[in-house]
Amino acid sequence: MKIGILGTGIVGKTLAAKLVELGHEVMIGTRSVAETIAKTEPGMMGSPPFKEWHAGNPKVKLGTFAEAGQFGEMIILATHGVATTNAIDQAGKNNFKGKVVVDTTNPLDFSQGMPPKFAAALGSSLGEQIQKHIPEAKVVKAFNTVNAFVMVSPKREEGDPDLFIAGNDETAKSKFISLAEQMGWKRVIDAGDISHSYWLEAMTMFWVYYGFKNNHWSHAFKLLLK
Amino acid sequence: MKIGILGTGIVGKTLAAKLVELGHEVMIGTRSVAETIAKTEPGMMGSPPFKEWHAGNPKVKLGTFAEAGQFGEMIILATHGVATTNAIDQAGKNNFKGKVVVDTTNPLDFSQGMPPKFAAALGSSLGEQIQKHIPEAKVVKAFNTVNAFVMVSPKREEGDPDLFIAGNDETAKSKFISLAEQMGWKRVIDAGDISHSYWLEAMTMFWVYYGFKNNHWSHAFKLLLK
Repeated sequence: MKIGILGTGIVGKTLAAKLVELGHEVMIGTRSVAETIAKTEPGMMGSPPFKEWHAGNPKVKLGTFAEAGQFGEMIILATHGVATTNAIDQAGKNNFKGKVVVDTTNPLDFSQGMPPKFAAALGSSLGEQIQKHIPEAKVVKAFNTVNAFVMVSPKREEGDPDLFIAGNDETAKSKFISLAEQMGWKRVIDAGDISHSYWLEAMTMFWVYYGFKNNHWSHAFKLLLK
Repeated sequence: MKIGILGTGIVGKTLAAKLVELGHEVMIGTRSVAETIAKTEPGMMGSPPFKEWHAGNPKVKLGTFAEAGQFGEMIILATHGVATTNAIDQAGKNNFKGKVVVDTTNPLDFSQGMPPKFAAALGSSLGEQIQKHIPEAKVVKAFNTVNAFVMVSPKREEGDPDLFIAGNDETAKSKFISLAEQMGWKRVIDAGDISHSYWLEAMTMFWVYYGFKNNHWSHAFKLLLK
């Protein structure tokens, strides 16, 4: 499948590398290709600058937001939460029509220092905001409750975490689940329609708090069902 | 230990029976002892009327909210979420001074039908509301993310769920953790101060939604740490 990813951060890069490894065609979109290639400082958690990373992952295409939006049959949003609707605008809303759009983002407000504050109100989770912003797209909220490395390699020593998702379109959810299964996800907990993104985003705040308190980032929720 | 429990619902009764079994002295408090004894209809999930249940659990004392509040060295709040501060008022705020108060409640609004809506805003979780209401008590938010039967018998076929707690007082949390360990809880995930009750209450909405969707109530979260 052709997959467009918006965002060159650790989530975008980690997903891109894995998806290419799985045989998909991937284009990462960025605000400015020239600036992304010119960066020399390492990213979050010591990840290498994009150019260095790209040298090791040459199959991943790099383009503008608009090019990645056009390219993808499925589009993955991997931007900073608060920057996401703007990135969609730059990519061109038309490029999202009818497509499965996977929203991995979280409404985090870093303006008051660490740990970040929750920046969504009940009824206006990022998942809902994005679905309203591109009503003809089929938004699936997913992957927002784990870090990038767990997304592409979910199995933990303590067990298999659950894949928590929300979205209005059942077919879109199925398509995303197939992709996630290729990455090793074993079980899906479907939270229901996109309005339930709120609970997945709220759960993540607990995840974030735990991470900052313990400097630990590979934790993942499982819902013990029996 | 002497434990007072406010609320004669399924949570209050299930905790009372288990705590007595563990050798604690327990008094359940109710708004009206006479009305509680007079009830003949079964409770939630087909639980027997209080009198019938009490015949099988004669060691559990029954009293008013105030009597249970006086009795307990530790007090467990097991009322409907929205009725909790009122129950505390009836029990007499003085009876909570300096005590560990375990808040198992959730801010659920049943007025618009099922599933219930979330009735707390960010910054005013029930845990926080209750701590503000009885500032001299040491409120520990706990047990709100599981049903009553899992509270007293946490082990699941799929593993041990985590005990998620929040509260301002470390000693109070330790005391509660000791009690929970007696019930079989293996690992604690401390969410931090009482303001983090919000995330535990929000997580529970996901739990509630899953329950209503699947008519399943014994599910419990685990945070896979490694």
